[in-house]
Amino acid sequence: MSPAGGTPPDWLLPPDPGTRRVARKLLAGIEGLPIVSPHGHVPVGLLADDAAFGTPVDLFLRPDHYAFRMLYSQGIPLEAAGLRPRDRAAVPGEPPDPDADRAAWRTFAANQHLFRGTPTGAWLRRTMELVFGIRTTLDASTADAVYDALAERIADPAYRPRRILERFGIEVICTTDEATDTLDEHRLLHLDGLGGRVRPTFRPDAVMEIAAPGWRAALETLAARAGIGIGSVAELLEALRIRRAAFRALGAVATDHAAATPWTEVLAAPEAEAIFRRALRGAASEDDARRFRGHLLVEMAGMSVEDGLVMQLHPGSFRNHNPTIFDRFGPDKGADIPVAVDFTHGLRALLDRHGNDPRLRLILFTLDETTYARELAPLAGHYPALRLGPPWWFHDSPRGIERYLDRVTETAGIANLAGFNDDSRSLVAIPARHEVWRRSVAGWLAGLVVRHVVRDEEAHEMARDLAVDLARSAYGLPEGSVPGAA
Amino acid sequence: MSPAGGTPPDWLLPPDPGTRRVARKLLAGIEGLPIVSPHGHVPVGLLADDAAFGTPVDLFLRPDHYAFRMLYSQGIPLEAAGLRPRDRAAVPGEPPDPDADRAAWRTFAANQHLFRGTPTGAWLRRTMELVFGIRTTLDASTADAVYDALAERIADPAYRPRRILERFGIEVICTTDEATDTLDEHRLLHLDGLGGRVRPTFRPDAVMEIAAPGWRAALETLAARAGIGIGSVAELLEALRIRRAAFRALGAVATDHAAATPWTEVLAAPEAEAIFRRALRGAASEDDARRFRGHLLVEMAGMSVEDGLVMQLHPGSFRNHNPTIFDRFGPDKGADIPVAVDFTHGLRALLDRHGNDPRLRLILFTLDETTYARELAPLAGHYPALRLGPPWWFHDSPRGIERYLDRVTETAGIANLAGFNDDSRSLVAIPARHEVWRRSVAGWLAGLVVRHVVRDEEAHEMARDLAVDLARSAYGLPEGSVPGAA
Amino acid sequence: MSPAGGTPPDWLLPPDPGTRRVARKLLAGIEGLPIVSPHGHVPVGLLADDAAFGTPVDLFLRPDHYAFRMLYSQGIPLEAAGLRPRDRAAVPGEPPDPDADRAAWRTFAANQHLFRGTPTGAWLRRTMELVFGIRTTLDASTADAVYDALAERIADPAYRPRRILERFGIEVICTTDEATDTLDEHRLLHLDGLGGRVRPTFRPDAVMEIAAPGWRAALETLAARAGIGIGSVAELLEALRIRRAAFRALGAVATDHAAATPWTEVLAAPEAEAIFRRALRGAASEDDARRFRGHLLVEMAGMSVEDGLVMQLHPGSFRNHNPTIFDRFGPDKGADIPVAVDFTHGLRALLDRHGNDPRLRLILFTLDETTYARELAPLAGHYPALRLGPPWWFHDSPRGIERYLDRVTETAGIANLAGFNDDSRSLVAIPARHEVWRRSVAGWLAGLVVRHVVRDEEAHEMARDLAVDLARSAYGLPEGSVPGAA
Repeated sequence: MSPAGGTPPDWLLPPDPGTRRVARKLLAGIEGLPIVSPHGHVPVGLLADDAAFGTPVDLFLRPDHYAFRMLYSQGIPLEAAGLRPRDRAAVPGEPPDPDADRAAWRTFAANQHLFRGTPTGAWLRRTMELVFGIRTTLDASTADAVYDALAERIADPAYRPRRILERFGIEVICTTDEATDTLDEHRLLHLDGLGGRVRPTFRPDAVMEIAAPGWRAALETLAARAGIGIGSVAELLEALRIRRAAFRALGAVATDHAAATPWTEVLAAPEAEAIFRRALRGAASEDDARRFRGHLLVEMAGMSVEDGLVMQLHPGSFRNHNPTIFDRFGPDKGADIPVAVDFTHGLRALLDRHGNDPRLRLILFTLDETTYARELAPLAGHYPALRLGPPWWFHDSPRGIERYLDRVTETAGIANLAGFNDDSRSLVAIPARHEVWRRSVAGWLAGLVVRHVVRDEEAHEMARDLAVDLARSAYGLPEGSVPGAA
Repeated sequence: MSPAGGTPPDWLLPPDPGTRRVARKLLAGIEGLPIVSPHGHVPVGLLADDAAFGTPVDLFLRPDHYAFRMLYSQGIPLEAAGLRPRDRAAVPGEPPDPDADRAAWRTFAANQHLFRGTPTGAWLRRTMELVFGIRTTLDASTADAVYDALAERIADPAYRPRRILERFGIEVICTTDEATDTLDEHRLLHLDGLGGRVRPTFRPDAVMEIAAPGWRAALETLAARAGIGIGSVAELLEALRIRRAAFRALGAVATDHAAATPWTEVLAAPEAEAIFRRALRGAASEDDARRFRGHLLVEMAGMSVEDGLVMQLHPGSFRNHNPTIFDRFGPDKGADIPVAVDFTHGLRALLDRHGNDPRLRLILFTLDETTYARELAPLAGHYPALRLGPPWWFHDSPRGIERYLDRVTETAGIANLAGFNDDSRSLVAIPARHEVWRRSVAGWLAGLVVRHVVRDEEAHEMARDLAVDLARSAYGLPEGSVPGAA
Repeated sequence: MSPAGGTPPDWLLPPDPGTRRVARKLLAGIEGLPIVSPHGHVPVGLLADDAAFGTPVDLFLRPDHYAFRMLYSQGIPLEAAGLRPRDRAAVPGEPPDPDADRAAWRTFAANQHLFRGTPTGAWLRRTMELVFGIRTTLDASTADAVYDALAERIADPAYRPRRILERFGIEVICTTDEATDTLDEHRLLHLDGLGGRVRPTFRPDAVMEIAAPGWRAALETLAARAGIGIGSVAELLEALRIRRAAFRALGAVATDHAAATPWTEVLAAPEAEAIFRRALRGAASEDDARRFRGHLLVEMAGMSVEDGLVMQLHPGSFRNHNPTIFDRFGPDKGADIPVAVDFTHGLRALLDRHGNDPRLRLILFTLDETTYARELAPLAGHYPALRLGPPWWFHDSPRGIERYLDRVTETAGIANLAGFNDDSRSLVAIPARHEVWRRSVAGWLAGLVVRHVVRDEEAHEMARDLAVDLARSAYGLPEGSVPGAA
């Protein structure tokens, strides 16, 4: 996205000169603020080990479903993008074959034109420049030079993960962790004094999806971790409570829930129990799964009322839409496809029970942009418990951010938003992702100023809110709350 | 929305200098036109009594669900916003406790930042300036001064409701009235010579919702008002016809229908009768209710063909989504949440029967913006009976207006639109709401002019159409049709 | 859309001066490129006969559902727009009554204001100027003069269909032809050396819709054309294969499929056979029809894998929504209304079977813009077989193009698009339609350049891609592949 020679100062700002002037000033007021990253998927082991990042392909292609899905869509096999099929999976710790790795990079480089106008392209170019000081335009002719330059930087201890946290002012970063996680790595980070800065997030999807193949195994692990037997719904809930406490003890501020749909309902105890028993027998139907998940979501909201963990819900992705790819390569291979969702009916049961309780903080994310103005803004503009998460996944792009702000703020204001989170799997991409958000916010707010919708000083406050302060307040991470952060 | 020191002349106009110049000229051509307000919810008693408006809280907060829902969403109890629970309802005529009233105002003032960038904030500031001459920015520090200034103006007979009609050139205003209304207040307005200027609108929802708790009572009141017994569908229809005639006699030009969905169908007479009998026994199902409503909507369209009343339909709101709030405070407390709707299948039966009849005028409103381009514009661009109502409720904001015009005009043109209506519950907010529309229209049309999509003189005509003339023609309120109006 | 005196050079370009400068340069690089038109509805007979176009009404009103639907929506009977009811259909070859024809034109002229801001209006004005050299603004006062001028041009051999192809650089044009078509006219074009330039497209809808009234007749014609009996699903598939080969022999590069929904599924052979037998008995249900269509779509994708025909699918139109108009005037009378669709679940079966096969090229079109960002871009950004068709029908307007590019490119890039196709029924409108696309593309890309999202030289390449090259590659029509084209 950035021209060769480096990112111009007006990158992503609106073209009208008067609006651009205002946007520049707004941006100047927020570009240096610390980064608060309350939701993302950086592997905690990366920060616990603080080892070097691996190869450029490990950093920019192999783990990035945005990147390799685009190559795949143009007929390039995933293997050629550096991925290994399940049956030829890497031995842990084994480095990739250097020739294959460099070949994957060359393929990536030679296909950079595919990313024109995409946020994936923008994040890549900006991260290479910002984090690694590489301004060379990546293409077939520069592939090797860029690979070598990146490899050299990666080998330098100055580019280790924890140094990235410091250099870019990442004040706090929340990882995402299975409910069954040992949390050993988070414990290690605590011992290293990074406990408040790197925090776990409680994600119990695997133990809530009673019709999924791995559910029984996940349940058994949960029982083992919680140290109780799980033979009933009450015991399942108790085990979840025990694990939530363990996560909170290590600094967790939130839970995180994916769901095929936003459906919630309150099952009568005997009905919940009957479904659970069918699930234990391996006989739960898809409808059982939907209803039981809906029931557990209401229970999880109730636990959040009790223990204060912010609840995050992001429904509406058809996971692993492509069975061929799933069978060969596993999940998260770029084949999760959004579907239309109905928050208005779906969340009724949960909100009826807990939506008026100011102790609950429920943050909603959507992949169905039609719900921004139709459902989410009206819901968040009414229920005290609700906040709206930022545009997510396919939508945290410059245009996606603009659509989001246009559609939610007129009804919900900005105080009902949860600010930004980068949702990144890549630690090094975090600064670029926040920069895209901050630049887009500055440009959008400048549009309000020049149309005299808000005053200049109001826009400056709104910019700070959207850049950091709303994320802090939504997740309970106020300034000064993170020991060791600047 | 307006900066301190008053609204700048370019409020809401596009920032590009060339476009803004065109927009200013277009605005100049329409800003002084009379206001035609064919759909809204100003209480008719206000105009019948022509008494002072009450307190500033009575005027700007207590009846405004946009305002108090935002406070509530941020954890402020509705009581603190001046609302009284049902079980402590005000005795009619009893003034509010002055201390509590002022405290509510202070809460409102101290939370004005919540309304940044919202139309609610814009309407408030602009109304205070335009109607009451108050340019002070409302915040915690100015709360009392603004309260006192407003209270002084309100006490001044120059600020009585009927004077507001005159001062702001409100040529005609249609109220919304239950099908069972006595119409006594409209009769009084007729005696005072305001008959053509203030008109009732026939809203029969309560007698059409056979599964709603109050239906039997509403039906009995309808029977009493119509002076016939209602023991069959035919008698129900006859009673509705009688009441429509009573409304027309007092100047009504339209009916108004809310509906959970836009479903319509034609039931065979015995089936309709069977459902009606189940309803009388209190045994109607939700599905019965949906089908019977759909049947009655077709019948109402047929009556419109006969008597010429314009039919307005606005489906897709899940009413009273929050039972806790409903139980404590009643309906219309900011908890009506939109849902996705399907006009294409839903309206088929009605349009099949009456859609080709030029004697029918059916005006459609939506809360589901996805239907603008997908369904509503294609339908209105074909069926002679259809017109599209303006963006409504959560969508009559600057951005909402832009989205509406962008999405409907390329397919339906502007001749298939019904112009603007303010849908306001607040008489004093009407001028500001029309101003937001007119400014947004001027800015949008200027965008067409500078891209050479329409010529300058065409844009001027389109601006007049959108400001007033389409509303006049859609509702049959041509210039000069209102006795006593300027 | 173009001002009197001719289209200004900046027609449709963005108003900001800096952006406009960039847009002009981008446009300059593509406006002279040849036109590739791989999908449209120009009657092949027009090109086979190469006769004069008929009257101005034959050219601009009678066949144009965009035009006469707008008149009809405003209460003008279709007869007054020059259409004849089925029971008074024209005798083939019989010219229209001259007085009635001129009267229809006058009606059209006097109602040009209805088309302000619509693409229909823009295409008309620009076509009259570009193709016929008429810059007079059409209105009531100029109706006769314009009619006469057009009639004079039409009579001139320089305005015959094949000359239009040459004058406007229409390098290749694909017509749409029933699976049961004799292809005699395409054969004639081959004999005239126009075989590669005018190509048929295989459209088997009529033989796939087993619950439609005309299905049995269509099936019998198919059997006759294919020269085999059709008594089983296997024979149906064999007949389709035979016909596909006949189409390919005459230059076809694609098939084309309308469908009420995008549903696909793989039926077990006995179930497919059972449904087929019910259909032969006239006893197929709506659900049978949906499932059988879904099954055949998967079969057709399989045939495309084998024979290389590009598969085009455009679901989501409720055809003939207005039975009154259908009964009196037949299909395609402006009463096809879009509905919401679900590609994510709907296409699963087809993509599961063939979506990873690079030999399949499936181009998707939608009338439900909400699917752009939610479903289509994520699907096309993953599956190798998929490309996204351009905005279609109600959406190939300046604003519609902008919404499309904004919503699909950030996720799918532009390499997963199929470029533009005009979908035109009118040969003379093709240049204007491509011009609207090219101007809109130039303006949109200029917006990326000035916000530094893409570099200038990238934008120039993207402009060429979107103007012609993506259409060439998506349909397998590379430069130089068309014998006889410039």
